[in-house]
Amino acid sequence: MSAAGEAYRLYYWPTIQGRGEFIRLALEEAGAPYIDVARGDESAGQGVAAMMAIMNDPDLGEPPFAPPFLADGDLLIAQTANILLHLGPRHGLEPPSEAARLVVNQLQLTIADLVKEAHDTHHPVASSLYYEDQRAEAAASAKDFREHRIEKYLRYFERVLAANPESPNWLVGETPTYADLSLFQVVEGLRYAFPRAMAARKSHWPKVVALHDRIADRPRIATYLASDRRIPFNEDGIFRRYPELDDEA
Amino acid sequence: MSAAGEAYRLYYWPTIQGRGEFIRLALEEAGAPYIDVARGDESAGQGVAAMMAIMNDPDLGEPPFAPPFLADGDLLIAQTANILLHLGPRHGLEPPSEAARLVVNQLQLTIADLVKEAHDTHHPVASSLYYEDQRAEAAASAKDFREHRIEKYLRYFERVLAANPESPNWLVGETPTYADLSLFQVVEGLRYAFPRAMAARKSHWPKVVALHDRIADRPRIATYLASDRRIPFNEDGIFRRYPELDDEA
Repeated sequence: MSAAGEAYRLYYWPTIQGRGEFIRLALEEAGAPYIDVARGDESAGQGVAAMMAIMNDPDLGEPPFAPPFLADGDLLIAQTANILLHLGPRHGLEPPSEAARLVVNQLQLTIADLVKEAHDTHHPVASSLYYEDQRAEAAASAKDFREHRIEKYLRYFERVLAANPESPNWLVGETPTYADLSLFQVVEGLRYAFPRAMAARKSHWPKVVALHDRIADRPRIATYLASDRRIPFNEDGIFRRYPELDDEA
Repeated sequence: MSAAGEAYRLYYWPTIQGRGEFIRLALEEAGAPYIDVARGDESAGQGVAAMMAIMNDPDLGEPPFAPPFLADGDLLIAQTANILLHLGPRHGLEPPSEAARLVVNQLQLTIADLVKEAHDTHHPVASSLYYEDQRAEAAASAKDFREHRIEKYLRYFERVLAANPESPNWLVGETPTYADLSLFQVVEGLRYAFPRAMAARKSHWPKVVALHDRIADRPRIATYLASDRRIPFNEDGIFRRYPELDDEA
C-alpha cells in the first residue's frame, strides 16, 4: 500500500518485462497493491494512452524522461533505481541503516549498468535502428559481452555475496533486498538471451545461481512468476534470444 | 568536511575527468576538503596503487565495482549517483524535502544515461576494443547521437528548467543542486566532443546554456576550473574530440 493508502500506479510499456520488471518484482515481493496502468483498458482511463498523457503533459512539474515511473499518491517518481530507493524502506526491501541503504542503491546501479550493456548487445549502434540493420556489430558486441562483461559482473556479485558478513544468502544484511530481486531478474534475462553462454559458465558464480533459486522459491515471487502478470520474455525487450548472439559458449 | 571531520578521499583515474568529475564538481562547489587519492604520490600511500589495493581487497565487505568511489570516514561509497546522493544533504546540494531529494536523484540518473550514451558513441561495439577498431560503427552511432539523442536529452532538461515552479534558474528548488553541476559538466563535455553539432543547435536549449554559464560563474567553480585540479578534456575520457564523429551539424 502506498503512503497515500492507495494502490501504487506503475507506468511501463505493456508488452515487455523491460526495466519495469524490477519494479514489479519489488511490489510483488512486498505484496503491495498496484495498478499496471499501461496494461489496463483505455475505457477505464488506463492503457498506453494514459501513460503517454503524463509523458507529454507540458504542465507537469518534474516530468519523467522515460518509463518506468511510479505514482505514489501525488508523488511521481521516475528512473528504476530511484523508484526502488523510494520503495525499499517502505516495504522492508532494504536494511534500516543509512549505510546499508547506500550499499543497496550502489548494487542496484551496478545492475542497471549491466542491464544497459545487455540491451546494447543487440543494439550497439543505435536504439532507434532495427536489429537487422546492426547484426554484424551486434555479433561483435555480444561476443565481448559473453566472454568478458557477464564474467566481470557476475563474478563481482559472487564476491559481494561471499563478503556479506551478515548472511551468505543475500547481497546486503540478513534479508532479501530489492537488489537481490533485481539480480534474480538479471540471471533470468541472461539465461533467456544467452542460454549456452550462461550454462557453460554457471560454475563461475554458484552463489549467484543459489540466490536466483532462493528468490524464485519465495512464495509471492513463485505465485507471480506463474501468473499472467509475468509477461514472457520476447524479442522486444532488453533480453532477447537471438541464437546468433549466443553462438559460442 | 566529511562526517568524520576529515577530508574526503576520492578515488578515480588520475588522468581523465570521467565520471569522477561529477564528484569533484560537487566537492568543489561545497568547498569540502578532499584528497584526490589516485593523483597523489605513491610515496605518500596514494596514487593508482592505493586505489587498486581497495578494488582488489578480498576482505572488503562491500567492494566497489569500479571507480569513482568515495571514502567518508569508514564509509566507502561507489557509483557516481550514489556518492552524490550521500553528499547532497551534507553540503546543501539538494533541497531539504525527501520528494525533492528523489527528483534530484532522478535527474542525476538521467544525466548518467546520457553520459553512458556519449561514451558509447566512440566505443559502440565494446569498451575493451580500441576506437580505431570500431570507427565505422562509431561514425554511425555518433550520427544518431548528434541528431536524436542530444536533442532528446537536452530538450528534456530545457523542459525541466521551464517547469520548475520555484526558480527558472535551477533544475529543482531555488538553489543549485548536484544535478545542476552535473548538467554543466555534460554541456562542457558535449561541446568538447561535438563542437559543431552543439554550436548549430544551441538555440534549441537556451535555458540549459544559461544554466551552464551560471554554474561556470559561481566563484568556487570558476576558481576550480582555472586551477590545475581541473584535468583538461582528452581522448582517454568519456567525451572525446574525434572530428570525424562531429562531421555534420
